[in-house]
Amino acid sequence: MRPSGRAFDQLRPVSLEPGFSRHAEGSCLARFGDTHVLCTASVEERVPPFLRNTGKGWVTAEYGMLPRSTHTRTDREAAKGKQSGRTHEIQRLIGRSLRSVVDLAAMGERQIRIDCDVLQADGGTRTAAITGSWVALALAFRKLVEQGLLAAVPLTDHVAAVSCGLCEGVAVLDLDYPEDSTAWADANFVLTGRGGIVEIQGTAEECPFARDQFLELLALAEKGIGELVEIQKRALEA
Amino acid sequence: MRPSGRAFDQLRPVSLEPGFSRHAEGSCLARFGDTHVLCTASVEERVPPFLRNTGKGWVTAEYGMLPRSTHTRTDREAAKGKQSGRTHEIQRLIGRSLRSVVDLAAMGERQIRIDCDVLQADGGTRTAAITGSWVALALAFRKLVEQGLLAAVPLTDHVAAVSCGLCEGVAVLDLDYPEDSTAWADANFVLTGRGGIVEIQGTAEECPFARDQFLELLALAEKGIGELVEIQKRALEA
Amino acid sequence: MRPSGRAFDQLRPVSLEPGFSRHAEGSCLARFGDTHVLCTASVEERVPPFLRNTGKGWVTAEYGMLPRSTHTRTDREAAKGKQSGRTHEIQRLIGRSLRSVVDLAAMGERQIRIDCDVLQADGGTRTAAITGSWVALALAFRKLVEQGLLAAVPLTDHVAAVSCGLCEGVAVLDLDYPEDSTAWADANFVLTGRGGIVEIQGTAEECPFARDQFLELLALAEKGIGELVEIQKRALEA
Amino acid sequence: MRPSGRAFDQLRPVSLEPGFSRHAEGSCLARFGDTHVLCTASVEERVPPFLRNTGKGWVTAEYGMLPRSTHTRTDREAAKGKQSGRTHEIQRLIGRSLRSVVDLAAMGERQIRIDCDVLQADGGTRTAAITGSWVALALAFRKLVEQGLLAAVPLTDHVAAVSCGLCEGVAVLDLDYPEDSTAWADANFVLTGRGGIVEIQGTAEECPFARDQFLELLALAEKGIGELVEIQKRALEA
Amino acid sequence: MRPSGRAFDQLRPVSLEPGFSRHAEGSCLARFGDTHVLCTASVEERVPPFLRNTGKGWVTAEYGMLPRSTHTRTDREAAKGKQSGRTHEIQRLIGRSLRSVVDLAAMGERQIRIDCDVLQADGGTRTAAITGSWVALALAFRKLVEQGLLAAVPLTDHVAAVSCGLCEGVAVLDLDYPEDSTAWADANFVLTGRGGIVEIQGTAEECPFARDQFLELLALAEKGIGELVEIQKRALEA
Amino acid sequence: MRPSGRAFDQLRPVSLEPGFSRHAEGSCLARFGDTHVLCTASVEERVPPFLRNTGKGWVTAEYGMLPRSTHTRTDREAAKGKQSGRTHEIQRLIGRSLRSVVDLAAMGERQIRIDCDVLQADGGTRTAAITGSWVALALAFRKLVEQGLLAAVPLTDHVAAVSCGLCEGVAVLDLDYPEDSTAWADANFVLTGRGGIVEIQGTAEECPFARDQFLELLALAEKGIGELVEIQKRALEA
Repeated sequence: MRPSGRAFDQLRPVSLEPGFSRHAEGSCLARFGDTHVLCTASVEERVPPFLRNTGKGWVTAEYGMLPRSTHTRTDREAAKGKQSGRTHEIQRLIGRSLRSVVDLAAMGERQIRIDCDVLQADGGTRTAAITGSWVALALAFRKLVEQGLLAAVPLTDHVAAVSCGLCEGVAVLDLDYPEDSTAWADANFVLTGRGGIVEIQGTAEECPFARDQFLELLALAEKGIGELVEIQKRALEA
Repeated sequence: MRPSGRAFDQLRPVSLEPGFSRHAEGSCLARFGDTHVLCTASVEERVPPFLRNTGKGWVTAEYGMLPRSTHTRTDREAAKGKQSGRTHEIQRLIGRSLRSVVDLAAMGERQIRIDCDVLQADGGTRTAAITGSWVALALAFRKLVEQGLLAAVPLTDHVAAVSCGLCEGVAVLDLDYPEDSTAWADANFVLTGRGGIVEIQGTAEECPFARDQFLELLALAEKGIGELVEIQKRALEA
Repeated sequence: MRPSGRAFDQLRPVSLEPGFSRHAEGSCLARFGDTHVLCTASVEERVPPFLRNTGKGWVTAEYGMLPRSTHTRTDREAAKGKQSGRTHEIQRLIGRSLRSVVDLAAMGERQIRIDCDVLQADGGTRTAAITGSWVALALAFRKLVEQGLLAAVPLTDHVAAVSCGLCEGVAVLDLDYPEDSTAWADANFVLTGRGGIVEIQGTAEECPFARDQFLELLALAEKGIGELVEIQKRALEA
Repeated sequence: MRPSGRAFDQLRPVSLEPGFSRHAEGSCLARFGDTHVLCTASVEERVPPFLRNTGKGWVTAEYGMLPRSTHTRTDREAAKGKQSGRTHEIQRLIGRSLRSVVDLAAMGERQIRIDCDVLQADGGTRTAAITGSWVALALAFRKLVEQGLLAAVPLTDHVAAVSCGLCEGVAVLDLDYPEDSTAWADANFVLTGRGGIVEIQGTAEECPFARDQFLELLALAEKGIGELVEIQKRALEA
Repeated sequence: MRPSGRAFDQLRPVSLEPGFSRHAEGSCLARFGDTHVLCTASVEERVPPFLRNTGKGWVTAEYGMLPRSTHTRTDREAAKGKQSGRTHEIQRLIGRSLRSVVDLAAMGERQIRIDCDVLQADGGTRTAAITGSWVALALAFRKLVEQGLLAAVPLTDHVAAVSCGLCEGVAVLDLDYPEDSTAWADANFVLTGRGGIVEIQGTAEECPFARDQFLELLALAEKGIGELVEIQKRALEA
Repeated sequence: MRPSGRAFDQLRPVSLEPGFSRHAEGSCLARFGDTHVLCTASVEERVPPFLRNTGKGWVTAEYGMLPRSTHTRTDREAAKGKQSGRTHEIQRLIGRSLRSVVDLAAMGERQIRIDCDVLQADGGTRTAAITGSWVALALAFRKLVEQGLLAAVPLTDHVAAVSCGLCEGVAVLDLDYPEDSTAWADANFVLTGRGGIVEIQGTAEECPFARDQFLELLALAEKGIGELVEIQKRALEA
């Protein structure tokens, strides 16, 4: 039995609320249970130096947690003067994940900056961030199309993410904080709408896992991400 | 006529939503029109070095803006590795304002850290932050009383804040962003529930103002803050 | 009775010594009693990015304290690798105050950087800095006129500053350190030569003050700043 | 045909040279072809704050590249004043990987710091670092046993790592730089001596990969890591 | 003929003004011509960690230049967030030089921090700083004796410094800025009152110098430092 | 008798291994006994701003120590976020020393960056770094000649360095760590192949030294550097 009473292959209640932020070209408040991440997409008509005059665009991401999004207060990174290794790791993951489904040549020589800010954390903030950011990104592209700056939305597919883990030896889908902090091993999966694997980050600090256990986690992720992609579709129809 | 259609002495629609954040000991989402600031209060059972073994407590504040809370994206301070002068100035103001109505000896040797994070900005973020933080602080104190750690809430009064300014020569209450960016002069007022002056920050970069104009602004602030204090009271009754 | 024996409305002995620094285009050593601030003005023939190709100029300020300007040694900000919130707050105040009396269009597309370095501190360093910086700025402008780079000094007025406070309930002018550290409330006033209000920063951490008390402080400031402006005039005649 | 002429399932020439560094308690120069990483293990008789008085130890890692280890010079992180996101990501990976095979309770309340410094880079620096660090760590533990500070080496298994990737659609083992920079997708695998999965980091920025392709990569990794573990054994026998 | 009209073996007019700073335990304004350095000595009743419980004391130094002490404005190190290599080099030199004449055991387990701040620069700031700091240090020790905290001043000798250089092939004493910026080679000498060599820093970026030339510079330094030591003695008698 | 058994005027076994690094335009592993420094030279076809459009080139250097190159682990400067004063001092010394024998006009408007990384330290790392860097620099210039980018190697002479010191009153050549840490005084000498003095850094923290002692050290340095220059010649012939 999971602490939340969910079945082993059951997501938390998920909502993706588009347009949460008034100023951003695209935005989405992603809620995976008590994990709430505000994702915004900001369009800039310039690219990083390595892409100048290539005709190609770029998508990059930054990630942060509000100091009291966590159970006990976490020091503010701006006040400490540097971002943690965990923050760097997560924002690089979000950027790579999104770029895997963007036609960078088709988006033109511009950059979209994604900001993922965790308003409340209860496990799985990076997977909620990726899932919500895809919606914010799609909305920003749609706006560029509406403005006549792009002919079509340069997305090749959906991308969404979920974490799975071994909790007392049982494979479960979409870990919340109590599960995450006691799991023997866990993995974050980023898959496309067609089921392609974009990123896998599996970690077994407590106890190495076997190939078959890993395949169980992957199967759970495929099921969960299928559901998340449907929720993304409904969010864009709203 | 003001851009928003408000009367010269009319606040924007204000809401103070207590308990917005699940983990914090006290929290409040302060909305002054399109300015939305999440205020949390975190209790720590230790004080800064200069207060150790004095029996007195401390209240301090930090402030930040989400990168896309603003009309165009603002660089993330955590990524830049330092907080701006404006941020320092604002968080010091919030801390001083709150401490002016706290009985530091009565709160015991503990610290409450206030975090004010701007989710969306449309002028007046620092005044919304002060007004909402007082609610978060009051809720955190109430929780300490409920836990038996304090005999009574060690607040001596309400404190709230509003900005006023001279827009094309006319004194108006509670500037929004279009007004703020074109005002001849403006002032932030922090007053207590009984009308005592806690902080005044008046600035006239464009055009010095006269003593009488300043008094007009103060009178508007007194009216507006009276209304804000009523909204704080209702928020705590909820 | 004040610790220094001064009357409630009496400034400390003030001197403004122009030309203290050999290399700067304008300089002034401002002494308010034992508070000594060296103010220099450096002319640069370029402006910050936001003003390029606008034809307008800019005046900005930096502030620092020598480590042993204070009663006990203060850590060197350069060694700590960052400036304090207080420093940021003060240097922004100095810059805004000076700009309020400069015709930025008339000064041409160049920048004047003011440096205010406290050689010795005894309360009121920011007000001494503003008062002395105006002299340094005026001298730098005069030099540009002498060099034929400007037709006239682009200053619209004097600007000077003083602090006032409530000491055991009595309003007094120009607080020194013993008064500053025990005042119930204090305010820094920045006024122009014609008496216009440029900046007011009133703070009542200990005890909120009433409108009438605030007006007493303002009246003292008007008197004191009138005297400071006379001293500025004599310094420029020297 | 691979650029290096290797078979698809062939490692580069690998050598693990123990005792390369005179001062460290354990050290190993790991060479995977032209990738050379110096790994040292330093014993400290104290632990991070979160472990004090728990009787448990800790293993942590830092990673760096010499500026001209790379094809073109990379800026020195010490001169830039911060470590890149990539560096943070890699050093966290090394630390987690090693801890997965250490009995932290058995090692006593002390810390071993691993430093992995890339003298020359040709792809796969993080996997060489993990593989070589295990040797350095084992040597440091052996020294503690020789000194009578530990009863036995507190390692539960070997741990080693290798990267695999899809190069023009073909799964290959142990990517060198020319392969790494053109692979469609690649994954780093960290496995134990008994074949348990400790870490998987799969990334498909160019082109998502399918479940079966991923399993091919895993099978290659299992073969390669089996060979690396044998080389580790021989290095310790030396 | 030197630009200043001085003889080749002539110092600039030198004055050492003790007690310039009201708050410091010891202070001295050192003027070597137009080079003006304010030196203060601050006593702290604690030592750096490596000296705790050894009964020995420490003397350390920091150095800074006011932004407009130089011919054109130099960026403020506190604003840049780091001290330059030159600053580090100079402050280490000052500290070592002073420690060479202090009996660290006799001064007790306390630290004296020297601050050397350049108010105006015209070449030779580091040598003026050393020469003036010795006076500040001696005054601080004298105060500790007066307070009964030390039995005697724990200085074993004077220490003073001067720069010499080859200007168009001629060895000259005490370079000013015009000479310093065109010298073929120059050297800073730090000698004790009895003529012992404490530090030599000779640099020949333009043109290597010969042993005999170097000995000429040393002879000039011996002459100049003899005179500086006399000026130090008179300053302490004042 | 020296701890190492060497004669007072005897260098440690020195080897200069050219081409140690595969990617750098020039490289050399300098070994002075147990002190091992990897020196690389990287050619960049651009110069620092102050040299743009002057037709002149530049040579600059950076220095670092691997954390466990030292007897006990030294914190990684990249992790601390700043380079120490000692590092700044050393890298400035290396750069100046090399530039003293480079014809900057003849090398064209390009920059060569020298990186000196200490793999193992046993005293004298800066002198080994200078001696090895000259070889790396010469190799990089030779490569530019081979590529037809330069007509001739723009070096005017050799430059090499060694430390000497007073150990229990006796002048000895090429201090190793046990000698360095107990010497009464020591000096680093940088001389050209023709015996010209480029840099002298003499320091006597423990005990001032006399002119004659200093001349003994210089004589030893002249002997040692003569030998080092021969080893440099042989390294280039290899």
